[in-house]
Amino acid sequence: MSLDRLIEKIVEKQNPTVAGLDPKLDYVPEYIKAKAFAKHGMTLKGAAKAILEYNKGLIDALCEVVPAVKPQVAYYEMYGYHGVKALYKTQEYAKKHGMYVITDGKRNDIGTTMEAYATAHLGRVSVGEKQYEPFKGDALTVNGYLGSDGINPLLKVCKEYDKGIFVLVKTSNPSSGELQDKKIGEKTIYQTMGEMCKLWGKELEGKYGFNGVGAVVGATYPEELTNLRKQLPDTFFLIPGYGAQGGSANDIAGAFNEKGLGGIVNSSRGIMCAYKKENCSDRDYAGAALREAIRMKNDLMSVIGKIEL
Amino acid sequence: MSLDRLIEKIVEKQNPTVAGLDPKLDYVPEYIKAKAFAKHGMTLKGAAKAILEYNKGLIDALCEVVPAVKPQVAYYEMYGYHGVKALYKTQEYAKKHGMYVITDGKRNDIGTTMEAYATAHLGRVSVGEKQYEPFKGDALTVNGYLGSDGINPLLKVCKEYDKGIFVLVKTSNPSSGELQDKKIGEKTIYQTMGEMCKLWGKELEGKYGFNGVGAVVGATYPEELTNLRKQLPDTFFLIPGYGAQGGSANDIAGAFNEKGLGGIVNSSRGIMCAYKKENCSDRDYAGAALREAIRMKNDLMSVIGKIEL
Repeated sequence: MSLDRLIEKIVEKQNPTVAGLDPKLDYVPEYIKAKAFAKHGMTLKGAAKAILEYNKGLIDALCEVVPAVKPQVAYYEMYGYHGVKALYKTQEYAKKHGMYVITDGKRNDIGTTMEAYATAHLGRVSVGEKQYEPFKGDALTVNGYLGSDGINPLLKVCKEYDKGIFVLVKTSNPSSGELQDKKIGEKTIYQTMGEMCKLWGKELEGKYGFNGVGAVVGATYPEELTNLRKQLPDTFFLIPGYGAQGGSANDIAGAFNEKGLGGIVNSSRGIMCAYKKENCSDRDYAGAALREAIRMKNDLMSVIGKIEL
Repeated sequence: MSLDRLIEKIVEKQNPTVAGLDPKLDYVPEYIKAKAFAKHGMTLKGAAKAILEYNKGLIDALCEVVPAVKPQVAYYEMYGYHGVKALYKTQEYAKKHGMYVITDGKRNDIGTTMEAYATAHLGRVSVGEKQYEPFKGDALTVNGYLGSDGINPLLKVCKEYDKGIFVLVKTSNPSSGELQDKKIGEKTIYQTMGEMCKLWGKELEGKYGFNGVGAVVGATYPEELTNLRKQLPDTFFLIPGYGAQGGSANDIAGAFNEKGLGGIVNSSRGIMCAYKKENCSDRDYAGAALREAIRMKNDLMSVIGKIEL
């Protein structure tokens, strides 16, 4: 089961961190942009090539220490289809370097269309007699607002190709409570969504106590996170909101069980822009990213202790 | 305001139909595939070129009668970045032919990331000193599960570039009620989402009684549709579920006000695959699509009567 592979990588590296790859062009060092623009012009293609180069440097630096990357699709779509090609190449490069790839797309739709998204991001598509992987993720983030028939096609593809999903439950943003915290009888909407994840997860059993339907739960709501861990003992959490958004290691402590398992914590800007914060040369951007990743690992592990299967 | 332009086109054509462009390769006539595969091989690129050719034929045939197209992004992502290029080229071609383009992406994320999606699908991105439109939609479908700070960046871009959004309220799929029909006090979740649309819509005033924040409301739930029209008199509806999914003209009657305004009804498979149902030559696929579009227009207009500003 796909999330088992993620868990094994987390244990191997003793690091429950996923590096978010959200490459705004502003984050990319000037020398990389200059090279790409010289070759491809100040074009969407030039921007996409610069982003890919930047990502490759980050992956080279991080792959020994960080078990996973999470490219956020929006930042690639921002550079049109050239950007989407950079997404594919980034996924491919990360996988070649042994990293687990979570595609952060928050896709959602009705059943027939969700089949298309599942095929696109987790499956294989037939073209005449040939088959292709349109994208290269190991897992995809999704939104469950449409209910089971928007999720079932994903479960089918996850089984067939050994992939996973993370469903939005309690998101990290300030206004997440506007809808998610509202109460349906005794339970909030996000708790109800959590129950739905539990149900969907029964289709994808794992060997380390967690199933293949994870939940996105923000580090910025520590109490909710702790309570969701109790409510959903078999659900693995993808935890955004650490660092730039305000969440600390203490805030996420409640996500982990006595074995130190239970979630993976995302940092995007914190790692990608570490060279700006360090104020080092931008040619050392990947080195700065690694130093920040190690600092973050130590920060998280100081709270978690040890991670074991 | 962007939806005003859509409304003007609907009135001009006396047709509240949007043609969904969800081009599965199975829908594409053999002769188009054969030509594309001969040139590009049985590859994702070959598939994408075939889809684009197919879409162009549909747009050529439909543009005089149908005011808008709605490409569903999933069906393009299914063919990787080549497919996403076909999406861009399809949008561009439809706009050149005077059609309003609704990009059906159901995007959603936290504020900073939503800025990236807004830029990608409705705005312009800077690359050095240059600016580009990454995609070519006039409006984008979005999911409001994350609340206001996932929507506000869209409103800003909509104002700046004269674009619109449609927020998922009550979707057309069988399981939509699992979450959406649950009650928060007196109101269902979808009604609560409707109220949020109302609030967001205040930012984008229109001149024909409707604001720039539309709502997606399925034809498959006629009672809910009729009640939502009363609850949200200023909200324009994008109505999927007609035809292949089971909704009839009578089912959508409640969406329209006394002027015949209030919504646009989507048909995807019904129009795209009309040649299969007609059992005519696949070389006449575009002709069959037009005949079905005219039949659908007459069907809808028999219920609506006349549409006026």
